[in-house]
Amino acid sequence: MIVLFTDFGLEGPYTGQVKAVLHQVAPGVPVIELFADAPAGRPKPAAYLLAAYGAWFPPGTVVLAVIDPGVGSARAPVIVESEGRWYVGPDNGLFELVARRAQSARTWEILWRPEALSASFHGRDLFAPVAGRLAGGERPSHLPRAAEIGRHADWPDDLPEVVYIDRYGNAIAGLRAALLPKSARLAVSGRVLPRARTFSDVRLGEAFWYENSNGLAEIAVNAGRAADALELVIGSPVAILR
Amino acid sequence: MIVLFTDFGLEGPYTGQVKAVLHQVAPGVPVIELFADAPAGRPKPAAYLLAAYGAWFPPGTVVLAVIDPGVGSARAPVIVESEGRWYVGPDNGLFELVARRAQSARTWEILWRPEALSASFHGRDLFAPVAGRLAGGERPSHLPRAAEIGRHADWPDDLPEVVYIDRYGNAIAGLRAALLPKSARLAVSGRVLPRARTFSDVRLGEAFWYENSNGLAEIAVNAGRAADALELVIGSPVAILR
Amino acid sequence: MIVLFTDFGLEGPYTGQVKAVLHQVAPGVPVIELFADAPAGRPKPAAYLLAAYGAWFPPGTVVLAVIDPGVGSARAPVIVESEGRWYVGPDNGLFELVARRAQSARTWEILWRPEALSASFHGRDLFAPVAGRLAGGERPSHLPRAAEIGRHADWPDDLPEVVYIDRYGNAIAGLRAALLPKSARLAVSGRVLPRARTFSDVRLGEAFWYENSNGLAEIAVNAGRAADALELVIGSPVAILR
Repeated sequence: MIVLFTDFGLEGPYTGQVKAVLHQVAPGVPVIELFADAPAGRPKPAAYLLAAYGAWFPPGTVVLAVIDPGVGSARAPVIVESEGRWYVGPDNGLFELVARRAQSARTWEILWRPEALSASFHGRDLFAPVAGRLAGGERPSHLPRAAEIGRHADWPDDLPEVVYIDRYGNAIAGLRAALLPKSARLAVSGRVLPRARTFSDVRLGEAFWYENSNGLAEIAVNAGRAADALELVIGSPVAILR
Repeated sequence: MIVLFTDFGLEGPYTGQVKAVLHQVAPGVPVIELFADAPAGRPKPAAYLLAAYGAWFPPGTVVLAVIDPGVGSARAPVIVESEGRWYVGPDNGLFELVARRAQSARTWEILWRPEALSASFHGRDLFAPVAGRLAGGERPSHLPRAAEIGRHADWPDDLPEVVYIDRYGNAIAGLRAALLPKSARLAVSGRVLPRARTFSDVRLGEAFWYENSNGLAEIAVNAGRAADALELVIGSPVAILR
Repeated sequence: MIVLFTDFGLEGPYTGQVKAVLHQVAPGVPVIELFADAPAGRPKPAAYLLAAYGAWFPPGTVVLAVIDPGVGSARAPVIVESEGRWYVGPDNGLFELVARRAQSARTWEILWRPEALSASFHGRDLFAPVAGRLAGGERPSHLPRAAEIGRHADWPDDLPEVVYIDRYGNAIAGLRAALLPKSARLAVSGRVLPRARTFSDVRLGEAFWYENSNGLAEIAVNAGRAADALELVIGSPVAILR
């Protein structure tokens, strides 16, 4: 299975062209669009989202992850192997948490270049062919390892910020709920929110936070849009009150 | 074929995770996203939309339908068999019209529970595995039947309200056009609209209604956005003038 | 491979129903959504977009292209063969540039009609079955040729207008960059924009134009939204300063 984690959108030409390359390089392998609206051009919040959602997929999955504001500049293209999953994308911190949370992660720099490499669309020209070949069973064993590439040691283990706003207006924080005290409250926009199990456990219109289905702390309003009600955007700070 | 009818959206993580489960449980079965923007959290209008659009698919199709504002509460998960199609989703009225319009419909309560069931995403954890197994040929014959589950006998046979606004701004009503008199006019927002065959039969900018390609009455403006021009939203009343 | 180029959107019912037909007529053939948001109801700008993006696909690809404001009127349905690719859609100019730029293009009128043809959704009822049969290897050799159908000889070879705004706010012009002088500047909204290789070659916030990954001139702002900053919409004029 190949999983797409990008800021490409689905309607425009970008995801379609990437899928066309994947179908040609790895015919018959299912391609799943996980996020086409990951934080646009912002590898740091995207890294916390990717670590939580990528880990949900079974070993052997290839994750093509492209949040690439530096496309066309000198940042390296990389392959990261983590817990049996293969990640392909730009070396800009996107894989920092995927690598840090693994028992053992290995990183390779991609030295291969396609015959025709556009200046602006490495997702299609460079990363997709590599992801397709990984899905077909090819392994980078012969490539030089690059242990330090892509590392951002100064980034925290969990990010006390909003990293994604979903279509219901829920705001996902870069915080693993299992690491927070059971009674922890979260403070956003000057409001203190209690924890609940899920929507049906609070009154209509009430704001709360809960452990979402991928283990992150998610801020929500029952039958409302938390991001609008609490004026949250990607990057809004989320304080933990223990 | 597995058909998705949800309010999950396509860009976020939800449809992608559901598709990943389906590909694992029912490898090789095509998955079609029919609606990812069905009326959010509103099973009643969604039920009329589902009955009209689900019936277009061939017998044997499995429809995974999740409009589930009560996720995490006590509402039962169900399988409904109707005219050879299999529907899977929450027991909250979503299948009322699918069942009522069938010669014979059968309903089962889903008693199976997955090992890991999140509080907020039964679409992925509970309904998708069941839909995948139905697509693979498994049948619920051994399960107890639940004839009365999911029934909302007080809902009308057709709903004189807007049930969907499409991307062109057309407003679809919960009314089967074939049951309306040929000369019927529809009144919305204080305007009376004549019937036409299709867009090219009225002048530019003119509002009208017509039988859409799935048999529902649809309110449109030639080369315009009816929902904006007539201030229509899901739930707006639509009166029939005979 | 079947490629979709439409203004149908992905979330509503339209693309899903088209894909359901394609899966039934041509089981196992991958279907790629290239554009679901091509210029809505505007075949002229869409024609320049289609010519640039369709040509990226390998010979043998079937492109189902439906921008069809005249659905239900007298415009003919056509098949166009161009450089080994097959295009299916309405005869309203959409294939003008695809045909004009080919060494040799052939056009056939589609005379077949389905048993049930809705007045408003020929994409599903008429064009999709034809595209599916082409993908399955059927050829229109027995049909009458229609050399002049679909031709708009008065349209220019390149269109000095914005033809698409992408999700990043970049504005794509109907101009092939390779035909512009290396030093050409583009004028839009009273601003003169220099050429650059890509985003990372200009300062943050700077507007420029570059050759995009499909060969068209694209107007962008580094880390900004050009369409908002420069007030560009589909149809905005783009002047070439040599």
